[in-house]
Amino acid sequence: MHLVCLDLEGVLVPEIWISFSEYTGIPEFRRTTRDEPDYDKLMAFRIDLLAQHKLTLPDIQRVIGSMEPLPGALDFIKGLRDLSQFIILSDTFEEFAKPLLAKLGQPLLFCNSLETAPDGYIKGYRLRQQNGKKCAVTAFKTLGYRVFAAGDSYNDIAMIQEAHGGSLFRAPEGIQKEYPQFPCTEAYEELLAHIKAFIGS
Amino acid sequence: MHLVCLDLEGVLVPEIWISFSEYTGIPEFRRTTRDEPDYDKLMAFRIDLLAQHKLTLPDIQRVIGSMEPLPGALDFIKGLRDLSQFIILSDTFEEFAKPLLAKLGQPLLFCNSLETAPDGYIKGYRLRQQNGKKCAVTAFKTLGYRVFAAGDSYNDIAMIQEAHGGSLFRAPEGIQKEYPQFPCTEAYEELLAHIKAFIGS
Repeated sequence: MHLVCLDLEGVLVPEIWISFSEYTGIPEFRRTTRDEPDYDKLMAFRIDLLAQHKLTLPDIQRVIGSMEPLPGALDFIKGLRDLSQFIILSDTFEEFAKPLLAKLGQPLLFCNSLETAPDGYIKGYRLRQQNGKKCAVTAFKTLGYRVFAAGDSYNDIAMIQEAHGGSLFRAPEGIQKEYPQFPCTEAYEELLAHIKAFIGS
Repeated sequence: MHLVCLDLEGVLVPEIWISFSEYTGIPEFRRTTRDEPDYDKLMAFRIDLLAQHKLTLPDIQRVIGSMEPLPGALDFIKGLRDLSQFIILSDTFEEFAKPLLAKLGQPLLFCNSLETAPDGYIKGYRLRQQNGKKCAVTAFKTLGYRVFAAGDSYNDIAMIQEAHGGSLFRAPEGIQKEYPQFPCTEAYEELLAHIKAFIGS
């Protein structure tokens, strides 16, 4: 039996912080792990910035709620459901993803969560575990699943390596060159074809 | 972070074989593990019976496709989604559940699968693993989830025991008496209240 594991941002929905920066017109939210490799420091910076702009979790959820899945993502999910069940493995936060999941037909998502004060301000975050994406694939394997995984970023590599099969999807050229062993896909139809081939193999 | 694991038949949809017996008017399909405790023999009996009545998988799926979720199940799922993500853990077969999952809003289901011949006749079945429900809960615990589980039958007991919290739902009196340590719920509102209390605890 098969299970497909998909990254969320960049695969089914836009990058949340980048879209958030565009929607709010606050360019500092574009800062990523490329600018600040220490994720703890980056999140502390973002949490400060949210507070400065008096943005509480409900405000953020409203902004995120106005974002849309990537063009073609819903048709892709429809086609994928005909082939296999799937789960989303992401490093985002449950509270951010919630409004987007509703637009994706409520797939199951394993990710992290936020710590929020009673007044709605974000105070911190909880990593569910280190290497959450890879650990999830390992767990599904112990349950007798053949796993296919796809994502676009460095944080997807361990998950794809751990899976029985997988591919990069719209990954930056640098990652594609660094991991030539993974097929690269750009269009949803291509990704679907890889999944179909995996299931038939 | 929380995850709710639910049994399928008797909790969200009617017992599939019993409904199938009623829909087809073939009473022998009502035979359960109470009549034939050896599951392999029971399935062999059912597969023979399907072939006798010239029922192929597409025929069966059409019949199952005309079944409906239990009254109130969709509202329960709506309320549950507001509280937590959930997954269905069942001993049924993916191919049987598929038409019902569509009516439940496509939740993720971990179960077993059938072996079907090219002409559509069912030839056998594949257990994904022994104690699949319990193993799934164990796996989710390794991923950092606090797990609540609910079901109605003997095959749900190990899953409920393995979870951090749980309850029986519309279980026969015998099971309720045998496992007095588990709360018994009859209405969806009661089950939802137990889940809410678990998440808040």
